[in-house]
Amino acid sequence: MGTKRLPSNEDKLIERFFKPLAQHPGALALTDDAAYLTPPAGHDLVLTADMAVAGVHFFADDPADAIAKKALRVNLSDLAAKGAEPVGALLTISFGEKADEAWIEAFARGLGEDCAAFGCPLFGGDTTKTPGPLTISITAIGKVPSGTMVKRAGARPGDLIVVSGTIGDAALALQLKTRLLSGGFGALNEAQAGELRQRYLFPLPRLALAKLLRDHANAAMDVSDGLVGDLGKLAEASGVHATVETSKIPLSNPAHDAIAAEAGLLETALTGGDDYEVLAAIPEASFAAFAEAAGKAGVPVTAIGRFSAGAGVAVLGPDGQELSFEKTAYSHF
Amino acid sequence: MGTKRLPSNEDKLIERFFKPLAQHPGALALTDDAAYLTPPAGHDLVLTADMAVAGVHFFADDPADAIAKKALRVNLSDLAAKGAEPVGALLTISFGEKADEAWIEAFARGLGEDCAAFGCPLFGGDTTKTPGPLTISITAIGKVPSGTMVKRAGARPGDLIVVSGTIGDAALALQLKTRLLSGGFGALNEAQAGELRQRYLFPLPRLALAKLLRDHANAAMDVSDGLVGDLGKLAEASGVHATVETSKIPLSNPAHDAIAAEAGLLETALTGGDDYEVLAAIPEASFAAFAEAAGKAGVPVTAIGRFSAGAGVAVLGPDGQELSFEKTAYSHF
Repeated sequence: MGTKRLPSNEDKLIERFFKPLAQHPGALALTDDAAYLTPPAGHDLVLTADMAVAGVHFFADDPADAIAKKALRVNLSDLAAKGAEPVGALLTISFGEKADEAWIEAFARGLGEDCAAFGCPLFGGDTTKTPGPLTISITAIGKVPSGTMVKRAGARPGDLIVVSGTIGDAALALQLKTRLLSGGFGALNEAQAGELRQRYLFPLPRLALAKLLRDHANAAMDVSDGLVGDLGKLAEASGVHATVETSKIPLSNPAHDAIAAEAGLLETALTGGDDYEVLAAIPEASFAAFAEAAGKAGVPVTAIGRFSAGAGVAVLGPDGQELSFEKTAYSHF
Repeated sequence: MGTKRLPSNEDKLIERFFKPLAQHPGALALTDDAAYLTPPAGHDLVLTADMAVAGVHFFADDPADAIAKKALRVNLSDLAAKGAEPVGALLTISFGEKADEAWIEAFARGLGEDCAAFGCPLFGGDTTKTPGPLTISITAIGKVPSGTMVKRAGARPGDLIVVSGTIGDAALALQLKTRLLSGGFGALNEAQAGELRQRYLFPLPRLALAKLLRDHANAAMDVSDGLVGDLGKLAEASGVHATVETSKIPLSNPAHDAIAAEAGLLETALTGGDDYEVLAAIPEASFAAFAEAAGKAGVPVTAIGRFSAGAGVAVLGPDGQELSFEKTAYSHF
């Protein structure tokens, strides 16, 4: 007899949707107040956290599984750029009024797919409600052999400025979305627009580069707030100047066509952010080996300029003239 | 020359208000994308995360420093109940429209005071804005000697049900706040009402009990969603029945007076939550030693009942009759 404890709806929600993601023994199937982690011997842990708010970082009507995946991937992108492999993550989430069971199920399914795909099980977290927009916070934990986390500081004069993948796609997708009613980018066909949209929805954390960055990079970070601004942060932390040649910046086919048709979109591509590509300082002598190994791992990398003594960032146009931008990076404040 | 990187307002905000809290070398003064942590040898890490939303978990007009302290302390309370000492924390925060610089400064000051007081430096995080209510997520990392995290599962028939401090104060404070226009609790004077309010604003993470719980407790958790419901969770995880005698439940002076004047408030005290006291299963043979050491550490503990074979929770009133409650715990869903 006695008061029978009926599981609350919150317990049921966690049991049904999030417990399957907690594939680490220390997560205790999300039935405890905390998880434990026996740290891998000989390693440092790498810690990063990002918050994403509907209407600020993503659109409330983006697909639920894409919202989940992106919230995790932006953190995994940070780990990758630091040379770290994922260990696990904690999720706190405030569901808005519109998050019904089907939405939560799709969210958890998307997150679970990525937890499995990237080897990043869920350690725990918190679910709550908000009268405001859906808000997601993820703390990701990674690991590197002791003392090898790749930092922003460390780029040296002479190092090449290297980026992975292509730059600007997500920022162009965002720009495109705001223009859809007035015809979008005239130069792009449906498939090209769709390609940009995929890049916005599903950033690719470059975990395949983690070890290569530890082996070759003097400094690295991921490009999240815009290439020019983030390069400025890396240059500042390293105490060096950076010169980028826009002609060398790797662009996707749709980004290329959009910019060719409308030159002003170059600024969007270089300062809009949401790239989640790696930006690294690679010594020139290492670059060939780095690029070859990265290519074999399926991630193209491109040298787009060079660090030198000094401070600040110069972005050179196709004619070698320095470009200037209204703002170099996205800031919430 | 070149594009001079001007620090964004976000950078300035972090530099000015949050960098002083990042007193761990691995936090890199919050100037990198991630922090590193060399795990303490021979220890497991303990991981927990909680989200707090204005209007849901706290009042938007609660003092900024109190909001910060409580957001950290509810996580430290989880660590304490798991037998863990703090290592550090990550903070993600979405500031609402009303969070001006003075508010953010007070928030950061409060958080910094507690980071210092509880030995829990800031490792990193994320600051952003929201069109909705202020939303805070904190991930706390603690440590225990390997394999010693105290779990919910483990209570055995015969173990005493033990709580720290007093139960129900914060829930009564919340109830009192909603009644203020109609005269509050008639039985309480100003000082008593103020005492309850302090308990709501400033929960006390029972870190002084961490080692004692590792040494003596078969199971433990913190009381956050209400004593009866949380005891039900612990009993369920442990596969035992729990019998509580309300006459033994430790009450503060104001809680005692409020309940004496209005018997219905007992239910509020036992199911309202926000206590952040430790709930533990202590073998009877260990209780005297546990209680003495806890008292010396400044934390009174009280045995309020006993676990036995079976399932569920029975709460016995002063006359030995079993009480029943409309709902046993707070749930967001």
